[in-house]
Amino acid sequence: MATAGKVIKCKAAVAWEAGKPLSMEEVEVAPPQAMEVRVKILFTSLCHTDVYFWEAKGQTPMFPRIFGHEAGGIVESVGEGVTELAPGDHVLPVFTGECKECPHCKSAESNMCDLLRINTDRGVMIGDGKSRFSIDGKPIYHFVGTSTFSEYTVMHVGCVAKINPEAPLDKVCVLSCGISTGLGASINVAKPPKGSTVAIFGLGAVGLAAAEGARIAGASRIIGVDLNASRFEEARKFGCTEFVNPKDHTKPVQQVLAEMTNGGVDRSVECTGNVNAMIQAFECVHDGWGVAVLVGVPHKDAEFKTHPMNLLNERTLKGTFFGNFKPRTDLPNVVEMYMRKELEVEKFITHSVPFSEINKAFDLMAKGEGIRCIIRMEN
Amino acid sequence: MATAGKVIKCKAAVAWEAGKPLSMEEVEVAPPQAMEVRVKILFTSLCHTDVYFWEAKGQTPMFPRIFGHEAGGIVESVGEGVTELAPGDHVLPVFTGECKECPHCKSAESNMCDLLRINTDRGVMIGDGKSRFSIDGKPIYHFVGTSTFSEYTVMHVGCVAKINPEAPLDKVCVLSCGISTGLGASINVAKPPKGSTVAIFGLGAVGLAAAEGARIAGASRIIGVDLNASRFEEARKFGCTEFVNPKDHTKPVQQVLAEMTNGGVDRSVECTGNVNAMIQAFECVHDGWGVAVLVGVPHKDAEFKTHPMNLLNERTLKGTFFGNFKPRTDLPNVVEMYMRKELEVEKFITHSVPFSEINKAFDLMAKGEGIRCIIRMEN
Repeated sequence: MATAGKVIKCKAAVAWEAGKPLSMEEVEVAPPQAMEVRVKILFTSLCHTDVYFWEAKGQTPMFPRIFGHEAGGIVESVGEGVTELAPGDHVLPVFTGECKECPHCKSAESNMCDLLRINTDRGVMIGDGKSRFSIDGKPIYHFVGTSTFSEYTVMHVGCVAKINPEAPLDKVCVLSCGISTGLGASINVAKPPKGSTVAIFGLGAVGLAAAEGARIAGASRIIGVDLNASRFEEARKFGCTEFVNPKDHTKPVQQVLAEMTNGGVDRSVECTGNVNAMIQAFECVHDGWGVAVLVGVPHKDAEFKTHPMNLLNERTLKGTFFGNFKPRTDLPNVVEMYMRKELEVEKFITHSVPFSEINKAFDLMAKGEGIRCIIRMEN
Repeated sequence: MATAGKVIKCKAAVAWEAGKPLSMEEVEVAPPQAMEVRVKILFTSLCHTDVYFWEAKGQTPMFPRIFGHEAGGIVESVGEGVTELAPGDHVLPVFTGECKECPHCKSAESNMCDLLRINTDRGVMIGDGKSRFSIDGKPIYHFVGTSTFSEYTVMHVGCVAKINPEAPLDKVCVLSCGISTGLGASINVAKPPKGSTVAIFGLGAVGLAAAEGARIAGASRIIGVDLNASRFEEARKFGCTEFVNPKDHTKPVQQVLAEMTNGGVDRSVECTGNVNAMIQAFECVHDGWGVAVLVGVPHKDAEFKTHPMNLLNERTLKGTFFGNFKPRTDLPNVVEMYMRKELEVEKFITHSVPFSEINKAFDLMAKGEGIRCIIRMEN
């Protein structure tokens, strides 16, 4: 490519300050260094994690920064040592990586790569500790190794999944974070047997994807639990068969669920991050065989508490990160699930805006409207 | 048999009061009713659970009572409807049962039978709510459906496992409770991969059996954790390769173990029932793939607390009851493991006394001496 090895000037949506609308700027994107790739982003979408770190209420602010991590694009050029990717490859960036060398990558059970595990405090590339983005020579920080709110971005090769070039990037871009997280929590971790009953706590994008996963696995009752009843109708499309709004009950929700299910659900998936919901999600599973899976990220001072007899009565409590998918190894297969029409992705996409209107996607999320808003980089 | 259908008079060790030495009495043992069997006990042993309920410090006292639940014997006669057992069968009584009809018995994952699950508050048979033991017409309470500190006892058929008649009852009697509990926690629940590292919290009979299970499963490092260093030498016989005494360290034991194992053990098994040890056992497993299994029974006011990130980093926390063995289905196979010399039982048996000296077994346990003391009913 004509641009390989050269700095590319392109548009990026830069966050200059916490909580202030993103500003469309011309940025310089340096060429990829060793084990890095430069990717032309075609579609990206907004996830709660972008908003959380943009608001910077719970952590040290790091600005100016380019957010964005759910996306799809095409490799523009590759750095030294990159053999698994080539210009023209269709890829999904991933906020966590897979080096394929560390004990986690070598373990069949883990996807928490020692080298490339998500690090929200790092704003630079791990190779040389520098940013590849700059404006007038001043560096702009990266975000979780992806920074997809830019027409071009540079990523470590371990954070880039190569996918089927026939997959429509405007659809499968949402598989690079939240949808796979919820889907994997159900199909890889909770593994509901056919005909079983599953409770899903929290009916946002991740929870709906967990419901979709339970549906795909063959669960026959999928009970959505949310404080916002307006989500219930939409959730039926994702397999939810029943709903519980804890506000409608004076009893603890675990008791409500136990009464609905002759002693407890077979599986539960917690997608809110609220520690009380985590405790409820654990205590609502049936003794003897129930499995509760925690997905939502808790407040740093949260404390999970339960009576140990709830465990000794043969309940299992597990947490998952990115649905236990290994980014490079497994994401291509998730895309294939979509291509085979086993996984329905379109229903997660409720809005779409051109890149120039990216702040509208933030407004929609702030209002709790829709599930995913696609941001089109080219028009 | 000449005794079938008749009351049998025999010796039993009766607990008249909480914490007072058992008294050898002549008791009357009524014939088995529907779905019950009467068993001649040949060998029994003393387990902490007997002592706990004999002391009656934490629960409503129920006296006079005949304790005992680890034992081996021979069926003397069977009641109406019993088809799976016949006089002369060699059996192990079990403190929890398997009806084979309820959702738990029908689930491949559970052994917590709805009908016959352990009930320490019940002192009578579930068929008619009466005791089969009496002295001068006054009933003596049963204990966990077994009451093996008697030459004859009556049990529900679901609490009796039929075993290979060639198995020596003076050895395999110890498999009916604690040894199987620890063994199963390792081989059925923790399932340590070959070459893995396992931490065992508490080196009493159950913990040593968990170590034995880890050894059988092929773990290469088995780290015993106990506050009593005098147990360490003995524990080597059960596969322990290393030891940690939390008293020797100022750091939390989970940190000590993480430093010994490059980030955490692959599996842990908690056999003390102390809630702080449970938390340590959970937090010492490696992120990404670690599994902690809780076996020890906690205090009723205990609270398990941890930061939910410890779960979200892909750790698993599970509890088990009776090592997830189904009493009637699986115990015969545990006996076969012994017969094939895969499981070494002899090393658990450190003492032996005649029935007339049963109180010596209580003294040994009070002093923490030895592992299991066999009580010989006949001499």
